[in-house]
Amino acid sequence: MEEIIVITTKQADFIEITNEISLYIKNQNLQNGFVYITIPHTTAGITINENADKDVKNDILMKLSKLVDNDSDYAHFEGNSKAHIKASLMGCTLTIPVANKKLLLGTWQGIYFCEFDGPRKRKVWIHSWKSC
Amino acid sequence: MEEIIVITTKQADFIEITNEISLYIKNQNLQNGFVYITIPHTTAGITINENADKDVKNDILMKLSKLVDNDSDYAHFEGNSKAHIKASLMGCTLTIPVANKKLLLGTWQGIYFCEFDGPRKRKVWIHSWKSC
Amino acid sequence: MEEIIVITTKQADFIEITNEISLYIKNQNLQNGFVYITIPHTTAGITINENADKDVKNDILMKLSKLVDNDSDYAHFEGNSKAHIKASLMGCTLTIPVANKKLLLGTWQGIYFCEFDGPRKRKVWIHSWKSC
Repeated sequence: MEEIIVITTKQADFIEITNEISLYIKNQNLQNGFVYITIPHTTAGITINENADKDVKNDILMKLSKLVDNDSDYAHFEGNSKAHIKASLMGCTLTIPVANKKLLLGTWQGIYFCEFDGPRKRKVWIHSWKSC
Repeated sequence: MEEIIVITTKQADFIEITNEISLYIKNQNLQNGFVYITIPHTTAGITINENADKDVKNDILMKLSKLVDNDSDYAHFEGNSKAHIKASLMGCTLTIPVANKKLLLGTWQGIYFCEFDGPRKRKVWIHSWKSC
Repeated sequence: MEEIIVITTKQADFIEITNEISLYIKNQNLQNGFVYITIPHTTAGITINENADKDVKNDILMKLSKLVDNDSDYAHFEGNSKAHIKASLMGCTLTIPVANKKLLLGTWQGIYFCEFDGPRKRKVWIHSWKSC
């Protein structure tokens, strides 16, 4: 397992980590197989979405915040229930195929760490297995 | 494959199954690899979220029910479209790494079976593969 | 890897691809293991849900469109932010176990390609690995 650190600077943000995952594959010399990404957090997520126009990630964050809004019915004492809900909506694990030492992603796909309760110092855990 | 049974007692509820997954790993004597969890249901889900304060799961359930509300436009004859929608929002599969016979989870992460159309007798299917 | 083409005919639609995945397993002669499905798109998703009554998929599409609605705050120049958001809510990868050359799915579960920005010609990428 390899751990990478993501320093988030906003309350909510999408931080692209595609390059970090590609570097892991290179360092592991993983020819063909699968890379698996997870986070040990419950107020953050991982997702794949467009990395060409940064307005896309901002629109996703904006609409998620409108959907999962402040609510006087929240009971959790830490006051960050919104972040927990968004975390489950995005999910916290991803599996991506690797072929010829490269991530098999679409042209516009990037891998994002989704911060919903920042700013914080966050961890991303990367694993892999070979095709067999 | 191993099947575990989850008896749900409410219409909507999150039931933690982390201990059951840990027991599976012990029984399988899985040293290093991945455990994979799925459910054969379309009105339930699986998610990872905080297991310290039970208000978190209740807040998630509450907000999901406000988002995916009753709607006279639903056409499905069984009347449980809300449950089907929540199921796809949470997802029905999870892959989690295992190292030294232990689930690699964060300090506050628990694995939850998400009941959205209970009470029912539900199944969780557990698989695994070794690192190779 | 195998690529299958999905031709979508509507702006938003769920197209079942369970049979195509089963055919892949047969062609690969995959006895026991896992099939992995992903798409190289950021305005589409993949999900598992009921395939018995087609009203279920229509109800999911209808409610998703009400939740992720038109919003004058969207900034993305292509005007399809709604599709990007729905894509991340559904997810774009799935792993499903295979036993005795058959997909391990529940009685009513089907695998769906989720079009959110059609009509388009879409790709689904299928991978697999054997149990080890």
